[in-house]
Amino acid sequence: MALIVKKFGGSSVATPVKIFNIVDRVLRERNADDKIVVVVSAMGDTTDDLVALAKQVTSKPYGREMDRLLSTGEQVTIALMAMAFQERGQKAISMTGAQAGINSSDTFGKGRILGVDPNRVFEALDDGNIVVVAGFQGITEDGDMATLGRGGSDTTAVALAGAMKADVCEIFTDVDGVYSTDPRVASGAFKLEEVTYGEMLEMARLGAGVMQPRAVEMGFRYNVPIHVRSTFNNNTGTIIREDYTVETNKRVITGVADDTNTAKVALVGVENKPGTAATVFKALAKNNVDVDMIVQSIRSKDDATTDLIFTVALDDVVLAREVLENLSNSIKIEKINIDEKMAKVSIIGAGMLGQPGVAAQMFDILGQEGINVEIISTSEISISCLVAEERVKDAVRVIHDKLLLDDRG
Amino acid sequence: MALIVKKFGGSSVATPVKIFNIVDRVLRERNADDKIVVVVSAMGDTTDDLVALAKQVTSKPYGREMDRLLSTGEQVTIALMAMAFQERGQKAISMTGAQAGINSSDTFGKGRILGVDPNRVFEALDDGNIVVVAGFQGITEDGDMATLGRGGSDTTAVALAGAMKADVCEIFTDVDGVYSTDPRVASGAFKLEEVTYGEMLEMARLGAGVMQPRAVEMGFRYNVPIHVRSTFNNNTGTIIREDYTVETNKRVITGVADDTNTAKVALVGVENKPGTAATVFKALAKNNVDVDMIVQSIRSKDDATTDLIFTVALDDVVLAREVLENLSNSIKIEKINIDEKMAKVSIIGAGMLGQPGVAAQMFDILGQEGINVEIISTSEISISCLVAEERVKDAVRVIHDKLLLDDRG
Repeated sequence: MALIVKKFGGSSVATPVKIFNIVDRVLRERNADDKIVVVVSAMGDTTDDLVALAKQVTSKPYGREMDRLLSTGEQVTIALMAMAFQERGQKAISMTGAQAGINSSDTFGKGRILGVDPNRVFEALDDGNIVVVAGFQGITEDGDMATLGRGGSDTTAVALAGAMKADVCEIFTDVDGVYSTDPRVASGAFKLEEVTYGEMLEMARLGAGVMQPRAVEMGFRYNVPIHVRSTFNNNTGTIIREDYTVETNKRVITGVADDTNTAKVALVGVENKPGTAATVFKALAKNNVDVDMIVQSIRSKDDATTDLIFTVALDDVVLAREVLENLSNSIKIEKINIDEKMAKVSIIGAGMLGQPGVAAQMFDILGQEGINVEIISTSEISISCLVAEERVKDAVRVIHDKLLLDDRG
Repeated sequence: MALIVKKFGGSSVATPVKIFNIVDRVLRERNADDKIVVVVSAMGDTTDDLVALAKQVTSKPYGREMDRLLSTGEQVTIALMAMAFQERGQKAISMTGAQAGINSSDTFGKGRILGVDPNRVFEALDDGNIVVVAGFQGITEDGDMATLGRGGSDTTAVALAGAMKADVCEIFTDVDGVYSTDPRVASGAFKLEEVTYGEMLEMARLGAGVMQPRAVEMGFRYNVPIHVRSTFNNNTGTIIREDYTVETNKRVITGVADDTNTAKVALVGVENKPGTAATVFKALAKNNVDVDMIVQSIRSKDDATTDLIFTVALDDVVLAREVLENLSNSIKIEKINIDEKMAKVSIIGAGMLGQPGVAAQMFDILGQEGINVEIISTSEISISCLVAEERVKDAVRVIHDKLLLDDRG
């Protein structure tokens, strides 16, 4: 007997026919005595349609009422899927996020899961039901519906699996699993059998789109294995877990990621005195502009001015410019240069720890390819380089071919 | 200061533009300090669309999952309407039936309101909100969503108004109020200024379509005035209340109703012994077939057989025939004749009490018009006659003209 949480996204449940495909698959794959929880998103484009409807009513479509509106999409799917299981002769029951005990903060539109109380889910499973749970939603302390933001259904599934101590949380997606890099960029990209939470988090943070970081964090917190696999076939995908179970799956570098949603901000001629950088980054933080890579080039502490260079997400460029221009009233900044045509290429791997040679190899490969590195940043298990956007796919390909395929062979 | 509950149906909120029309009207009509609760249905054909979707999944679209599905329609409306109020600068908050404290039985698809706990609605009103409540839905003891069946939004509005001791519950509809009869049938039909709960219940039961009996019952139970009025103008409509406030509004006959959803069942040659009729009606009741008018013609207690004639709703004809045919195995019934081309014409009026002459007048008028009366039934405040369906509109017209217009003039 296994307890399994399975999550299917909106495109997998877009029509009644597709819902039956999922239902039949779940029933076919189920071993006798398995307990199954299915977490689903809204059907197809429902969420987009609801957003469009709200925009006809208000220019500020967010907050409590927006979450009430959006949460209806998943309610439709769970009801239909529970009916579809019943139509196949399988006892089933639908549950909203609230009924499944998903407690959320009241930060509407980007609710954080504060806790999971899965008692009612357990009871329904014990009664022989397959339980169909609405993803992307939780209930606030006041009893209001809150949606969990981007990737919210994955987060629901993993949090529920964790709280229930499920054997595995299966995330069904339109790809076969997590790849060493984007196969459309590097033809040698290969599917990873296993990856650690830490690596997956770093890959997600650095641009690999398969899983949202929050769901991976949730898996890490509860230590529940996440199986990322395809909706279209029965192959084993990628298991995200605490550590490798098969030694040969472990390698120095696990993946190469790129992120073009990045812009370089250069503050040229900033007055060189203690606290200036702090003032800049505090002002940005106060306005919710996330700063990523940072370089400050101080030639000498006696220089009157210095340059402060960092990256922000493309979406934040307008806001960042506004904040910085306001700031130039109180701090001397000669010039603000923003370059939106930048991108970040990163290598990720838990095996890099204590292997300083890897960074040198990476810079060497990029140099040989004539790709200029503008900023470098590193974490314990990753190295990122800021390069021109037009060269980033080349960067991914050469790094992948020379570092990953060689390592593998 | 007044506390007012206003209910708008699906066609009034079918599009964002129509929602704004309602919002603007509510704000325009509001006196300073008025506390307003708005109860709404699902937008336009949403409920029908959801039913159609469910039918693609299951041949048995009812029960708990169906109610979860259907309840999403009203959730969409309340969210959009609360946004629309906010867009107009008015504080507003949406509430599901559960949040508004509408407690329902778990008879899914036809939930009965067991009680109303409007604390949260009061709190929100005290905070300066207009409260927008989802009609047609309540929450069961298990925390499941249950829909309240046909006319459910009216029932929600009146129950909430009653529990909150509102000054009035306004039901907005596509007609100007409650008419003495259908103006399309009798051109002299006039709008009633006032009508009692008892009369309105009887009119609804006997075929007048403006209000569902359950909502009127709810008004009666809580003694909350119900104002039935038009969505399209600001005229005063009809007030349904305990008794007339204006003596001249009170008349012998209040209205004439007709109901073509009726079939006559004649059991010919039924064995004449005590308990036979009880056996027949018990069997029908057990199968949820409602029997309305009944005549048993027993010429003499020594007759071997008798005829038992009654009416059932058209929808129940197939089921009734099945029940009766089964019964004819245990009880001797020579023949079962069912005539679906029958209709009922009724006059209603609290003033008829103790005025036996009215019945005679009614039969006289129908006789003069050559309309044959097959069955007669009476209640304290109504008299109904079963006539041929093809003559029922004539019957309504002559009765209305001769009894109501004369009474009025």
